[in-house]
Formats: sequence, structure tokens, C-alpha cells
Amino acid sequence: MTTTMDVANQYVSLCRVGKNAEALATLFSDDAVSVEAMAMPGAAQEAHGMAAIQAKGQWWVDNHEIHSASITGPWPHGDRFIAGFQMDVTNKPSGKRMTLDELGLFTVRDGKIVREEFFYTGG
Amino acid sequence: MTTTMDVANQYVSLCRVGKNAEALATLFSDDAVSVEAMAMPGAAQEAHGMAAIQAKGQWWVDNHEIHSASITGPWPHGDRFIAGFQMDVTNKPSGKRMTLDELGLFTVRDGKIVREEFFYTGG
Repeated sequence: MTTTMDVANQYVSLCRVGKNAEALATLFSDDAVSVEAMAMPGAAQEAHGMAAIQAKGQWWVDNHEIHSASITGPWPHGDRFIAGFQMDVTNKPSGKRMTLDELGLFTVRDGKIVREEFFYTGG
Repeated sequence: MTTTMDVANQYVSLCRVGKNAEALATLFSDDAVSVEAMAMPGAAQEAHGMAAIQAKGQWWVDNHEIHSASITGPWPHGDRFIAGFQMDVTNKPSGKRMTLDELGLFTVRDGKIVREEFFYTGG
């Protein structure tokens, strides 16, 4: 049986080596929901379903140059876990370089991530 | 109006200077619920109400020598926020010294914390 901690460890291991797209494709439910702490300009605060979450990820990758990235955790609690994301990036449209420090709260059901919620303060 | 971020900042500020008991007394709802990631020996996983949460805190303080402690965050998302707790402590009954690294997920309603849930892996 796949436990929450199994999923959490696989997620963090894949993201640690930059395989975020693979983590999404293999560990998330097709009808997963992704929720930002705040809506980004021109984007919805919530993305529903694998296609919408992949599109959001692609938009992010297309619009940012990543200088360095690290991931911390996971910290588990029941059917949820938290992972931390620290990134040094430049937003391509604005040219603004910034340090991002976010936490993701993930909910696991039947061995798949069904919900991710990101916690952060506005830049 | 008191926002989630107001409560979050007050909570972190008080805990940063060791005023955890004051944070509990002033920022938590009387019927708040506190949930551990796992039940501690001889204790319930959930504490219901201010008196039970205070008793849990007192038990913890009585049973640990704190060598150093720091708090990180807060990271907000809607009516919730996360704070991080890093501690170097010795468990008095066992004499075992350990480094604790936990995250607390707090839910705020009507300007008070109504739920805290702790995320961590077992020692």
C-alpha cells in the first residue's frame, strides 16, 4: 500500500532533481486541484485538473529564469504533507530578480495527490 | 479588522521571544483544537479547548530542557498560515538530546486561531 509518506518522499525526490513535470504526471490525480495563495496577474487562483496544472507550470517555466532552486521536507500529518520551495529566479517579462520562499501543502487520497495549496507572502 | 496575517505576525512575534503561553492565551479561541502528527506516549493526538492545549504545553515544558529555539514564517494562504519551529532540546525523562523541526498549520476564524496542526516525522 502506498502511504502518504511514500508519495511525499517520491515528490520531494523528483523535484529535488528538477523533475517537477514527472512528479506532476505520475503522482497527481487527473482531477487534482492546485491553489495559489493569491491570483497571479492574468491567471486564476485555482487550477482544476491535470491539464490546467500542467499549463500553469509551463507558463511559470516560460516566464522565469531559474538561477537556483532547492526543496525541503517533507513534513507529514495524516493524509497531508508539506514541502518547502526556495528559488532564486528572474521574472522574464519584468526582468526583476527575486528570491521565492514558499510552502506547498499536499493532500493525498488513494495514493495520489488530489490537492496542492501554496503558502507565501506577496513579493 | 484583524486579518489572518495580523494574527500570524503576532503569533510568530510572541513565540520568537519565548512568549508561547501568551500567544496561546491571547490569540487562540477558547474552543481551539490542537492536533499532533502522532500521539505522544501517554497523551492523546488531539487536545480540545484552551485548558487541554495549555496542559499539553505545560507537560512539554516540564519534560524538556530547551537549549535553543527559533521560529520561521509566517507563510499565509487564505484563512490559514504556517509557521516553522526548530528546537534543540533534551527530553528530561530519557535524557535524549534531539533536534526538532516541525511546521504548524494554523486556521484563523473571526480573528482567533481555532485549529493548529503539527507536521513532522517521528524521531
